[in-house]
Amino acid sequence: MKLVIVGGVAGGASAAARARRLDERAEIVVFERGPDPSFANCGLPYYVGGEIRDRTKLLVTSPEVLKGRYNLDVRTDTEVVGIDRDARTVTARRLADGTTYVQPYDALILAPGAEPLRPSIPGIDLPGVFTLRNLPDVDRIKAAVDRGSRRATLVGAGFIGLELAENLVRRGVETTLVELQDQVLPPLDREMTTPLVEALGAKGVVVRLRESAEAIRAVAGGLAIDLRSGGTIEADLVVLGVGVRPENALAKAAGLEIGQRGGIRVDDRMRTSDPAIFAVGDAVEIRDFVSGAPAQVPLAGPANRQGRIAADNVFGRESRYRGTQGTAIVGFFGHAAAITGASEKALRREGRSYQKIYVHANQHASYYPGARPMTIKLLFEGPSGRILGAQVVGEDGVDNRVNVIATAIQAGMTVFDLEEVELAYAPQFGSAKDAINMAGFVASNVLRGDVRQVHVDELDEQRLLGAAIIDVRTPKEFAAGRIEGAVNIPLEQLRTRIGEVPRDRPVVVHCQVGMRGYMATRILRDAGLDSANLAGGYKTYRLYHPECKL
Amino acid sequence: MKLVIVGGVAGGASAAARARRLDERAEIVVFERGPDPSFANCGLPYYVGGEIRDRTKLLVTSPEVLKGRYNLDVRTDTEVVGIDRDARTVTARRLADGTTYVQPYDALILAPGAEPLRPSIPGIDLPGVFTLRNLPDVDRIKAAVDRGSRRATLVGAGFIGLELAENLVRRGVETTLVELQDQVLPPLDREMTTPLVEALGAKGVVVRLRESAEAIRAVAGGLAIDLRSGGTIEADLVVLGVGVRPENALAKAAGLEIGQRGGIRVDDRMRTSDPAIFAVGDAVEIRDFVSGAPAQVPLAGPANRQGRIAADNVFGRESRYRGTQGTAIVGFFGHAAAITGASEKALRREGRSYQKIYVHANQHASYYPGARPMTIKLLFEGPSGRILGAQVVGEDGVDNRVNVIATAIQAGMTVFDLEEVELAYAPQFGSAKDAINMAGFVASNVLRGDVRQVHVDELDEQRLLGAAIIDVRTPKEFAAGRIEGAVNIPLEQLRTRIGEVPRDRPVVVHCQVGMRGYMATRILRDAGLDSANLAGGYKTYRLYHPECKL
Repeated sequence: MKLVIVGGVAGGASAAARARRLDERAEIVVFERGPDPSFANCGLPYYVGGEIRDRTKLLVTSPEVLKGRYNLDVRTDTEVVGIDRDARTVTARRLADGTTYVQPYDALILAPGAEPLRPSIPGIDLPGVFTLRNLPDVDRIKAAVDRGSRRATLVGAGFIGLELAENLVRRGVETTLVELQDQVLPPLDREMTTPLVEALGAKGVVVRLRESAEAIRAVAGGLAIDLRSGGTIEADLVVLGVGVRPENALAKAAGLEIGQRGGIRVDDRMRTSDPAIFAVGDAVEIRDFVSGAPAQVPLAGPANRQGRIAADNVFGRESRYRGTQGTAIVGFFGHAAAITGASEKALRREGRSYQKIYVHANQHASYYPGARPMTIKLLFEGPSGRILGAQVVGEDGVDNRVNVIATAIQAGMTVFDLEEVELAYAPQFGSAKDAINMAGFVASNVLRGDVRQVHVDELDEQRLLGAAIIDVRTPKEFAAGRIEGAVNIPLEQLRTRIGEVPRDRPVVVHCQVGMRGYMATRILRDAGLDSANLAGGYKTYRLYHPECKL
Repeated sequence: MKLVIVGGVAGGASAAARARRLDERAEIVVFERGPDPSFANCGLPYYVGGEIRDRTKLLVTSPEVLKGRYNLDVRTDTEVVGIDRDARTVTARRLADGTTYVQPYDALILAPGAEPLRPSIPGIDLPGVFTLRNLPDVDRIKAAVDRGSRRATLVGAGFIGLELAENLVRRGVETTLVELQDQVLPPLDREMTTPLVEALGAKGVVVRLRESAEAIRAVAGGLAIDLRSGGTIEADLVVLGVGVRPENALAKAAGLEIGQRGGIRVDDRMRTSDPAIFAVGDAVEIRDFVSGAPAQVPLAGPANRQGRIAADNVFGRESRYRGTQGTAIVGFFGHAAAITGASEKALRREGRSYQKIYVHANQHASYYPGARPMTIKLLFEGPSGRILGAQVVGEDGVDNRVNVIATAIQAGMTVFDLEEVELAYAPQFGSAKDAINMAGFVASNVLRGDVRQVHVDELDEQRLLGAAIIDVRTPKEFAAGRIEGAVNIPLEQLRTRIGEVPRDRPVVVHCQVGMRGYMATRILRDAGLDSANLAGGYKTYRLYHPECKL
């Protein structure tokens, strides 16, 4: 068996190692266009910031180790420039001298990755304008900072943009984030990003939303970025992080099927439209685990799994890819934000019916020092309760909770199952009723009809219907920050002051996080009043209305 | 509906709050023998150590809040001393004045908890000998330390023993742990506790295993603890943490069915042998989630869930308890140890067939600062791959991984599913191939027959069969610490030195954690040699042989 792999990072490297374990005698050739196989691309921002000091740490392995341990023939600085599907050969070009040669294959695995998008605006190719994909890129950015760049503009506030912002601030660089959308971290729902914008602002990062760079100009002492809104930002360096495009040129030229968004089309065995050719990683179109729809999701974990699965199938093993959930996490300035499965906006886009709840809880027992708030947004379908997605934002314990829900989604679990999961509890690590259990309780209460919810984005509609908004928090909480028009009847007084609750119009009750509000709706229901609880309470209200005090 | 609840902590408090949410008009009376309802019993050791400074933090709630929010009639310092099942009444005694009165019920929920065992040895009732269950207990222990106790002996090295050890060391108290079994943290398998014993030793805690206190004597300046082995330890205070006994006296006297180990017997609705009486928490006999056998598992999380379920059933809701997995975690001296599901020794006791694997991996990307090693032991059944249990030990990320596996067990997932779970990865939080995925890979390789494992506890048997032990690590690793009799052929040289591998006797290969050993078995298999890989490599060997160097 002659196996040729194009691309030696993540998916390609995993495929190669797995292939060797499956077949000691296969001839395995890995072509890598860059100088390094299998570098730590997710670590690049931290090398800029100095958190990772030693550049060699970014080199996960070397051609020598891959040769010695796995007997892989890794050819770096070599680009595959053509595939002859009939002859089953690829044409490789040595970048050093431009010479080419032909390499035959029995099976071919394409793992070329994705390249950063470069918007076609004037000045995009000026010195000082960077993208961040590989080690040469990071060397250039770090060199610019080392040389004294003091002002950076990051175009795009996605995962890499946020990580770079943290690392540039660590280096003392004044940093501005320019984002086309009306939120940072576009995979998340907007309201969940409110704490992230606040965390950025607290560290001096300027966040410009609904904004884009129209042109970049060289000016005295640096670059000027002309904004769509009319303003201009000056900067010493610009980094573009506006997304990636699958590297599909090779596949396209070979006549392989390509998906609508440019990904190489594969089946669940990672096989392309040519049965001898497989493709994995950021370059392929995958199936979204939750919706079943085709999608492009460039993530390292899925790339690694796909590489393994492609190798399995090359050697005749039954191995299928289940689809990508899009589990992702980002940490910056002591905050973390994570997502798994579908977002609310994705569900809306698909026109899918769903329900949602919010839980605000501490990551561990409140009585133990270091308890920090965390918000979970859980999306699920009724009446089955099947979990569709979740987002978690907080300072600690975020990875833990998103991993539990990611596992639950993989297992097809429901919100009723989340009520019952038995998680680890000691004061430093969790709570007897973990935030995950709380999310299960709240969602199950909704599905069982124990409580009717109103969402913050439905409040205006409720107001038009003349709804009374009753705040059942303490007078002290009410005084600190309130929803406009709300009337304060503390839960402790609700039973005796129930006569003050109007019976001639809808009633929305709320508290701080939703628990007292739930109890209030139960008291009112007993009195014949069909009230609704504001989902997630005032804390969720504030996610939608950051101008309010907490 | 008149609902009476006996016991106001964890399970009782949860039952009461849930009951009120289900029925606004029910009359709900909660009897609590102690002075405080719903205190944070898992936080008590940290109050001794000063990590929790404010005693009021340990009071989760107050009778006033429970009255105001939930309209609960909480009667503290009141003990229920009898149940008249025919009349459906309980007799309550006010501890202040000893007066009694009769309280009728329609439904009764017993949540009396469990009391610490006090071995019947001479001196057990001496001043300075404590147990730790509630706030008065912790006040006494803390007062002893505050008064200047400088030497403590903790009898029992379970969860509370380890937590107390950390907190006493924090207070400058010389601490000795005396444990009857041959390991600390008896719910775990012994080899997994090796790093814990080392962590205790590094902080100066003296650990005496296979040892017990035969007598305690008052001597000049303190207490003397006479040991079974013949020695004596002197101490200023002794804390007993040798387990708990379900508080079943009330249930027993009322003629309710009691399990073999003393727990109140309940069905999966938490109903006792009397249909009007429910029981929850540490006092009940539950069903082990994995084995299905009756068990006593005193944990806060299950107690809370059981309370909720009992209340559901009191009010006619279909709600069933799934059983207890025994998910638990303990943190001390910067280390954490966790378990979920069955241990290996439990599976052996049951005579159940199982398989096991070990994974040694970092909690997050190795290239990112702060990467720390973690060990996962995974127990599963063949050929289905169903996960039976796991133990995780490390310094960071332990809670995260045990929670994922706990969720997987709840969902009935297999090791093949662990290969595919899509967990959150960023350099600070995980790896593209998370330790959980690695555990899935290793276990699946075993079940698919891709590798044959030998376990450390089978090595002697292999040696009797004349097995050759080949260490495929680097010469440097080999020089630092090795298995007796092992021959070093680094993986990188194995293909060319394959002639040195004996063909006339069994071959066991090993590396540091198992990955290179796996590759080595593949190389040997291709050469017609059926070798086995030592599960978990030298790192697992060392868990069994702490005397070896790492």
